[in-house]
Amino acid sequence: MEEEILQGEAVEISLKDLSKKLEDFAKARDWEKYHSPRNLLLAMVGEVGELSEIFQWKGEVDKGLPNWEESDKEHLGEELSDVLLYLISSEALIFQSLGFKYILLMLWE
Amino acid sequence: MEEEILQGEAVEISLKDLSKKLEDFAKARDWEKYHSPRNLLLAMVGEVGELSEIFQWKGEVDKGLPNWEESDKEHLGEELSDVLLYLISSEALIFQSLGFKYILLMLWE
Amino acid sequence: MEEEILQGEAVEISLKDLSKKLEDFAKARDWEKYHSPRNLLLAMVGEVGELSEIFQWKGEVDKGLPNWEESDKEHLGEELSDVLLYLISSEALIFQSLGFKYILLMLWE
Amino acid sequence: MEEEILQGEAVEISLKDLSKKLEDFAKARDWEKYHSPRNLLLAMVGEVGELSEIFQWKGEVDKGLPNWEESDKEHLGEELSDVLLYLISSEALIFQSLGFKYILLMLWE
Repeated sequence: MEEEILQGEAVEISLKDLSKKLEDFAKARDWEKYHSPRNLLLAMVGEVGELSEIFQWKGEVDKGLPNWEESDKEHLGEELSDVLLYLISSEALIFQSLGFKYILLMLWE
Repeated sequence: MEEEILQGEAVEISLKDLSKKLEDFAKARDWEKYHSPRNLLLAMVGEVGELSEIFQWKGEVDKGLPNWEESDKEHLGEELSDVLLYLISSEALIFQSLGFKYILLMLWE
Repeated sequence: MEEEILQGEAVEISLKDLSKKLEDFAKARDWEKYHSPRNLLLAMVGEVGELSEIFQWKGEVDKGLPNWEESDKEHLGEELSDVLLYLISSEALIFQSLGFKYILLMLWE
Repeated sequence: MEEEILQGEAVEISLKDLSKKLEDFAKARDWEKYHSPRNLLLAMVGEVGELSEIFQWKGEVDKGLPNWEESDKEHLGEELSDVLLYLISSEALIFQSLGFKYILLMLWE
């Protein structure tokens, strides 16, 4: 039950609120001293690497991942999230949430 | 004026709505035939590469990118957006927006 | 003593002989069935990610890595090697060692 | 004729000699000031991205790339070379060609 609510919150959250939440999260852990643009970029490259490792020996895979073990899907969900978190954090560090305006120039035109 | 509204919309949009918008965008262009999990993953790796190229010869850079040319910032914003777009599209293809629930397991705990 | 000899061999080996050695190594383990171009490419992206993780929280680092622990250097050497191995294997799979001719077009011109 | 010789040289060159050649190449162009470990690592990530872009919309591809245009193969050969060049340069900067000894610990055991 609690998890269902959480899932709802996760996908309903805006880029801006997610960005703020990540900032608070890092502040509470005193991680801000590690957050330089290139540190976060390399951390994101690291997570993209972990994502790639999940797919590396599988050949082409179908949409929705039929036949995958539940534990592999969970692992994949975590790695996708890790890439998102470092990407949003990078953007905030550099642009204070204005960098993603370029999404719009494409999607709203 | 229009751009200000657009910026507001971009950062207020939820992960779920962004995901839906990207799906419509791809459908309208008949791009869905190219969207397999590994195709999108490699496309994301390509964009992460373009992001890295912006930083490659700069040594460490400061938060907020003081002294950067406006055109370099714009280019950077576009590459950040491109990574986000392929990441969200990958997630949708694989998980229908449930993969990011793992964000919450970390941020809401 | 043995390690010294090994180091010598490693740096003296030619791209061509290294490529042949890797092929034999994979054959002996029956790994060839996993070696498709995109599988090897994603495996290389994975190793580049592991390499990036070593550097991610360090800020800029000096040439030669003064002040690094020996164990961190060893880990780094392993990751550099892993990237090289997948890169050489990819090239062999695709080009039978002719892809690196482009090195020459640059270096010998 | 000249190209044949060049191809031969390229694949016969040892890791050590390639490393030396790259060092001379950079020195002659006064590029050494840009060569810090993280700059070269990000440059390599950039090239891995370009390599990925070549494969991104193709689905799985066969060994040897039958049916590829000659110009696409040439482009691919250049990107493979670029990754190799930055990898060898990184290794030299960090380890003076000792980092690849770890290849041997695996291949010669």
